Amino acid sequence: MKLVSYRKQGALHVGVVDGKGVVELPGVSDLGAALMQGVDVMAAAKAALASPAARTPLEGIEYAAPVTRPNKVVCLGLNYYDHAKEGGREKPDYPWFFYRGSSSLIAQGEPGIKPRVSDKLDYEAELAVVIGKKARHMTHENALSCVFGYSCFNDISVRDYQKKTGQWTIGKNFDGTGPFGPLLVTADELPPGATGLRIQSRLNGQVMQDANTDDMIWGVAETIVLLTECMTLEPGDVIAMGTPAGVGQARTPPVWMKDGDVVEIDIEKIGVLRTPIRNEG
Amino acid sequence: MKLVSYRKQGALHVGVVDGKGVVELPGVSDLGAALMQGVDVMAAAKAALASPAARTPLEGIEYAAPVTRPNKVVCLGLNYYDHAKEGGREKPDYPWFFYRGSSSLIAQGEPGIKPRVSDKLDYEAELAVVIGKKARHMTHENALSCVFGYSCFNDISVRDYQKKTGQWTIGKNFDGTGPFGPLLVTADELPPGATGLRIQSRLNGQVMQDANTDDMIWGVAETIVLLTECMTLEPGDVIAMGTPAGVGQARTPPVWMKDGDVVEIDIEKIGVLRTPIRNEG
Repeated sequence: MKLVSYRKQGALHVGVVDGKGVVELPGVSDLGAALMQGVDVMAAAKAALASPAARTPLEGIEYAAPVTRPNKVVCLGLNYYDHAKEGGREKPDYPWFFYRGSSSLIAQGEPGIKPRVSDKLDYEAELAVVIGKKARHMTHENALSCVFGYSCFNDISVRDYQKKTGQWTIGKNFDGTGPFGPLLVTADELPPGATGLRIQSRLNGQVMQDANTDDMIWGVAETIVLLTECMTLEPGDVIAMGTPAGVGQARTPPVWMKDGDVVEIDIEKIGVLRTPIRNEG
Repeated sequence: MKLVSYRKQGALHVGVVDGKGVVELPGVSDLGAALMQGVDVMAAAKAALASPAARTPLEGIEYAAPVTRPNKVVCLGLNYYDHAKEGGREKPDYPWFFYRGSSSLIAQGEPGIKPRVSDKLDYEAELAVVIGKKARHMTHENALSCVFGYSCFNDISVRDYQKKTGQWTIGKNFDGTGPFGPLLVTADELPPGATGLRIQSRLNGQVMQDANTDDMIWGVAETIVLLTECMTLEPGDVIAMGTPAGVGQARTPPVWMKDGDVVEIDIEKIGVLRTPIRNEG
């Protein structure tokens, strides 16, 4: 199933996509909170699909991020070897984990923000994993059982801030730099671990990154094993799985996003996340 | 005023400390959520202090972290020059920002966890800043106006994981490694920016770190200016201001915390955060 978080008169709702329409899930307004409370969202979505309730056209909906306030967004750096190489790095032997805060997240249709203080705004196509169940010390065998679904993520990076110190975090947490969505595809609809999916970014229609989720050094299950060795993954948490080669900073000359650009992240069977870039007001 | 978050039969409450007792704030159960909703917590605390309502003894209370689910916890690395030096680093020219997730936070009295996968567990005494108002593009003049109060933080670090890659995040996000509290002291009770306060850590009663918040390279106002150049600080967000020299890893031989140890963070006029260390179950 494909789920969508959206707003109506400012209030958050969750719906399931039925063709070109959306059916609201009664009693589920915030997907992250519902997962945290142990609501059976899959059952609610199935019931909504079977109901004769009115469908709202998907076109024209006001999207919210699939989870608007994840307790954590764990990101992987250097998880595609060709991207590590284009940055002049060796193949890592452990993921370069860093975090994003929810204040950086934006939804489909919201503008990505080129900040006042930098012109070095870069795109990064990524697979997003949404956790559905509390998970600690998972094994390769059971790791994927905690995954609720998948979505698209654009890990937009302010490259000069990312490199101000050894820690990338500040360059990954500007307001308006975490496009996430538009839909969440439940795990049962995709190959285990969302393997074998083409992943692309396009800037103003031109393909900039073109890879396959099979190219990830650490797959979804391996990543969950590594993370849960250290911490509890909680319902609604998000893992952004890292980006392949082709980012703007590695090009000659470098390509930086600017006001008026449109960047798209396209993952096979998951969707197209479209973000217009605007200067900070 | 001194505020305390605590639990009664599992439910979260906020109280104001009156001598050795606590008066509950009616209608405020979650400090972070109340600040986010724009509740005038200061007024509610003043009213509670003036009321004849029963005082619960502070001793024996089940503490919660001052903010249990901050949207973000921004940490500063290398913000005391003597600590940068003991780690073999130059004086930084920008803070080494990284994030903690709320799943790492624990309250007064809860055990800090020595994980199964590492013996390299280290303490870090830090001043915690709790944000009270949404803040973006703050200036040196108005930066402190967004601060609600201060508390103690122990940025417990799993050093081998911190150094597995260039990104420290994973070594700073193990479960049970973010002691925070016990009380929140409102900003009006302290010098502006909580300057001039002695800050110590003690391990099993022995002083390990002993410095002054004046020794921070970036003070609270400067840090807020730098952060809000990039992002919105939101009510309930926490900034952990970095640690002075004296950490376990820089000692000869290194000192690692182990099951049965007790570590305390003591900040003048703010309080003593006491954490027993336990092996992961």
